[in-house]
Amino acid sequence: MLASISATTINPRQNNIPLIQSVKKNRNVTSLRIYARQAALVAEPPSPHKTQNRTARLAESLLNFVHLHFDAPTNNSSYAGHGREIVDRRHKMADPEAPIMSPKEDISAKWNEIHTSDRYENLLSPLQPWLRREIVKYGEFAQATYDAFDFDSFSEYCGSCRYNRQKLFEKLGLSKNGYEITKYIYAMSHVDVPRWLERSHLVDTSWSKDSNWMGYIAVSDNEETKRLGRRDIVVAWRGTVAPTEWFEDLQNKLEPIDESGGEVKVEHGFRHIYTSKSETTRYNKLSASQQVMNEVKRLVKLYREKGEAVSLTITGHSLGGALALLNAYEAAETISGLPISVISFGAPRVGNVAFRDKLHKMGVRTLRVVVKQDLVPKAPGIMLNESIKKFEEITGNLDWVYTHVGAEIKVDVRSSPYLKRKFDLLGFHSLETYLHLVDGLVSSESSFREHAKRDVALVNKACGMLVDELRIPENWYQLEHKGLVKNPYGRWVKPTRDSEDVPSLHHINETPCPPCLD
Amino acid sequence: MLASISATTINPRQNNIPLIQSVKKNRNVTSLRIYARQAALVAEPPSPHKTQNRTARLAESLLNFVHLHFDAPTNNSSYAGHGREIVDRRHKMADPEAPIMSPKEDISAKWNEIHTSDRYENLLSPLQPWLRREIVKYGEFAQATYDAFDFDSFSEYCGSCRYNRQKLFEKLGLSKNGYEITKYIYAMSHVDVPRWLERSHLVDTSWSKDSNWMGYIAVSDNEETKRLGRRDIVVAWRGTVAPTEWFEDLQNKLEPIDESGGEVKVEHGFRHIYTSKSETTRYNKLSASQQVMNEVKRLVKLYREKGEAVSLTITGHSLGGALALLNAYEAAETISGLPISVISFGAPRVGNVAFRDKLHKMGVRTLRVVVKQDLVPKAPGIMLNESIKKFEEITGNLDWVYTHVGAEIKVDVRSSPYLKRKFDLLGFHSLETYLHLVDGLVSSESSFREHAKRDVALVNKACGMLVDELRIPENWYQLEHKGLVKNPYGRWVKPTRDSEDVPSLHHINETPCPPCLD
Repeated sequence: MLASISATTINPRQNNIPLIQSVKKNRNVTSLRIYARQAALVAEPPSPHKTQNRTARLAESLLNFVHLHFDAPTNNSSYAGHGREIVDRRHKMADPEAPIMSPKEDISAKWNEIHTSDRYENLLSPLQPWLRREIVKYGEFAQATYDAFDFDSFSEYCGSCRYNRQKLFEKLGLSKNGYEITKYIYAMSHVDVPRWLERSHLVDTSWSKDSNWMGYIAVSDNEETKRLGRRDIVVAWRGTVAPTEWFEDLQNKLEPIDESGGEVKVEHGFRHIYTSKSETTRYNKLSASQQVMNEVKRLVKLYREKGEAVSLTITGHSLGGALALLNAYEAAETISGLPISVISFGAPRVGNVAFRDKLHKMGVRTLRVVVKQDLVPKAPGIMLNESIKKFEEITGNLDWVYTHVGAEIKVDVRSSPYLKRKFDLLGFHSLETYLHLVDGLVSSESSFREHAKRDVALVNKACGMLVDELRIPENWYQLEHKGLVKNPYGRWVKPTRDSEDVPSLHHINETPCPPCLD
Repeated sequence: MLASISATTINPRQNNIPLIQSVKKNRNVTSLRIYARQAALVAEPPSPHKTQNRTARLAESLLNFVHLHFDAPTNNSSYAGHGREIVDRRHKMADPEAPIMSPKEDISAKWNEIHTSDRYENLLSPLQPWLRREIVKYGEFAQATYDAFDFDSFSEYCGSCRYNRQKLFEKLGLSKNGYEITKYIYAMSHVDVPRWLERSHLVDTSWSKDSNWMGYIAVSDNEETKRLGRRDIVVAWRGTVAPTEWFEDLQNKLEPIDESGGEVKVEHGFRHIYTSKSETTRYNKLSASQQVMNEVKRLVKLYREKGEAVSLTITGHSLGGALALLNAYEAAETISGLPISVISFGAPRVGNVAFRDKLHKMGVRTLRVVVKQDLVPKAPGIMLNESIKKFEEITGNLDWVYTHVGAEIKVDVRSSPYLKRKFDLLGFHSLETYLHLVDGLVSSESSFREHAKRDVALVNKACGMLVDELRIPENWYQLEHKGLVKNPYGRWVKPTRDSEDVPSLHHINETPCPPCLD
C-alpha cells in the first residue's frame, strides 16, 4: 500500500481517511525508508484552491509534513564547495595531537540559569559554550551504555555490561569527567514489547536471560561538584542503537502513567520496560523504576545530610531518552525540591499533552537534542502527530496525541562538512552522530563550529557517516576477533570473563556501600 | 530471464538452445544463487521417454547437473540425529586443552608415492593420514595469504601484506611447520579483468596502487627437510575470499598459454594476472611469473649444488589455485627433473584438455580439493562444461572446453556435524571450510573423522557455517577497532605501520640473501 503512494494517489479530492489509516498500521522501518524517499521526491503540496474540505486539508497537511521532514539526498553538483571545505579542514583533522576537548570552566554560577529560565531562553541560540560542553558530557555518559554493552548473542553474559561499575568509566576513558558509578540498573527483557531488548541465544545462560543491563547511576566527585556548584547525580539510560525492530513494535498505545495520574498518559511499551518486575527473576525482583528511585533517594539523602546542594540529571538516547522522561516524572513526584533536568538525544515522544504540562509544572527541565533527519524523534505516530494537532477539531481531544516535552536543540546532518550527504537511517540516529553535530553547533544559522574539538572518528563507531576523505573505516567499534582469543593450546576460545566483571546480584539486592568520595 | 526458469519453462520438447545461451551470458552470482535454489526445488528430470532429440537431452543433462550439484537445505525434521551428534561431541570440543594437530610422522619414504603413482591411487580412498596432514599444512600456507592481507581500502598499504616475510609465519602461528619465507610475490592490479584484485581508495597511496601482494615462496628448514625426505620449496598463491565480483567477470576466453603452446589454451584472465608487468610500476617491473620463476630457479640451483633432493609444491585457493597450475606448467617446462605437485582448494578450471594432458605428461601431480557444494570449481562455464562434454558431437572439438586437471578429493559440507545445513555461497567456498572438511575426511563413505583435531572455530573466521551450538561468532577474524588505535592525545587514528612491515622494493628488485637455513 505504501509503495503505491504518490502525488497521484494522494488526491485531495478523494476521501483519504482509509489511506491514512493504512499508513498508521504500517510501522515497518524499511517501508518507511522507501516511503520517505519516494515521498520526498514525488510529494508536491497541492495548490490551495483545491483543498475543499477537512479531509483534503488533512491530506495536504500530511503531504507538507512528509515534504518538510524528509530531504532527498543532495545531488553531486552541490558537493563542490563541500569537497573544498573538507580539504581545507583536513590538515587540522590530520593533527593527531590536537586537543579533543575544550578546557573546562567553572559553571557553578551558571547552572541555575537552566532551572530559573523557562525553556532555556538565552542559552540555546547561539548555544552557550559551557552548555554545549555539558550536553556532550551527558551524551558521553549515555554512549557508555552502548560501548560497554555485551551484544554478543552467543555470550553467556549477553545483555550485561562487560565491566563492573568501578571499572567502566576508566575502561571507556570517561574518568576525566569526574564521576563515580554507584549502581547499575537492570530491566526485564521479557516485556510484552517483543525484540526491544537483547536476549542471549543460549538457553543455559548463567547470569540472567530475564534481564538486560539498562544503565547506571553515578555521582560527581568533589572536584567536579565544586565546578558544577552542586553534587550532581546522573542517571544514564541505555537505548537502542538501531531504530529497526523496536521501532516497528511501538504499539502507539497511551495508558495512564499511574493510578493517580489522571489525564497523564504515556506510551505503554516505555512504561512497561520502566516498571516491570518479577519475583522469579534474579535481577528484576525490583523494577528498573524501583532500582533507580531507591538509589537516587539514598544519594539525595546522603548529600543533603551533609548540607550539600544536590541536582539530578537524567540522560539517554533513543529508548533511553524515553525512559529518562519517565524517570524524571517519578523523581519529581517523589523527591521535593530537587532540581531535575533531562538531556535526551534522538528520543521518541513518550506521553500526551498532560504528561508534558505536568512535567513542566513540576519544574523538570528537558533539553531534547534532535537530528533533523532522524526518524525516531518523530515516533510514535510518525506520520500523524503534527497533522492531527492541526486538525484537533476532528476529535477535540488531545489525550491520545503524543507530544514532545521541553526545549529542543535541532541539529542538521548537512551542517557538518565531515558527514556524507546520503540517506542513512542508522547513521542519522546514531548517538555519536548527535554528539558530533552538537559539538559543531553554534546556531541553526551558523556553519559548523570551526573550533570543534571532538574526535570526528568517533562518528563511525557504529555507522558509516564520515566522508571517505577522512579514511575512517565504517562501524569500527569492535572487539579483536569478536572476543575470541587463542589459548596456550592453540585453540580459539571465548575467554572466561574476569570474575569481577560478572554481573553480581550484590549490586541489585543489597544496599551498596556509600560511594568513596571523601 | 533466469528467474523465469522452472519445470514448465524447461520443456524438453521445446528448442532450448536460446535458453542455454542466456544462461551462459549471465554470470552474476546472486542470480546463480537464486537460480540454484529454485532449480533444486523445482527441477525434476523429465522422464526418459520424453527426451526425443539432442536438444532435449542437453536440457535434461543441464537439469541433472543442476539437480545433482545444488542441494536444497535439509528441513528441520532431519536435524534430530544431527543435534544429538553435536551434543555428543560438545564436551570434546569444549576441552580447550585438546591438541590441535595430529603428531608429525616421518614421511621421507612415502612422499615419492605421489610422484610415482598415477593419479594418487591407493592414497585417496581412504585418505592416508600422512597425506591428509600434508594437505592441511599446504592449505594453511594458502590461508596465510588471506590472514595477513591488508584488505582495508582506506589503508595506504591496501593490497599489501601486513607483515614482512621474516615475521609472517610467526605472526600467524605457522612457524611450527618448519618453513622460512624467502620472497614475496606481487601481481599487477591493473589487469583488464576488473575487480579481481584489491585497490586502495586512496589516490596517493604510498606503497603502490599498481600491485597486489599475491603470495610468497618458502623453503623447508633442515628438520622439516629431513622429515619430508627432500628440500621442499613451496609457492603459496593468494586467491579471492569471496567468489563474488571476479566470478562475475570471468571472461570464459581461452587463449594459447604461450607462443609455443600449440593447442594448449588457458583462461585469459588467469594468464593475464600471472604474466602482466609494466615498466612504470614499482612492484611489477617483473611479472608475477618472472618473480616466482627467478626465485624458484635460484633455490633449486642453491640446494642442488649442495647435493640435496629438491621438490616444488605449489598451493592456492580459488584464483590462487588457478595461478598455481599456471605456475606449475611454467616450472615443469623450465626446470627439468624437478618433482612438482599442485595442491589446490576450490580452484576453478584453468585450461582446455590439451593443457591438462600436457601437465600430466610433464609429470606435474595435481590434487584438487573440492567442496561438493562450492560453485567456484564449476567455473568458468559453470553450467556448460559437463553438459557440453557429454554432447561433444555438437562441435566435435574440445579446444574450447575447460577441463579440470589431476586427482580430485571431494568433500561434502553435509559430512560435518559442525556445519550448518544452509545454502551459503561464501561459506561453501571459504578455505577454512575446506580445511575443516579435509581434516574430517576418511573417505566419501565414512562419517566425519572422530579424531579430527583441527580447531573448528577457525571455520567461522570469514563465514558463518558453524552450528550455533558451538557458540562461535560469525566472521570473527577481524582487527580490534578495524586497526584504529587511541593515541596518547585521545584521538582514534590509524597507526603508522612498523617500518619493517612496509612493503619494500628491496624484496622485488634485488636478489635476496640466501635463506639462513644452515
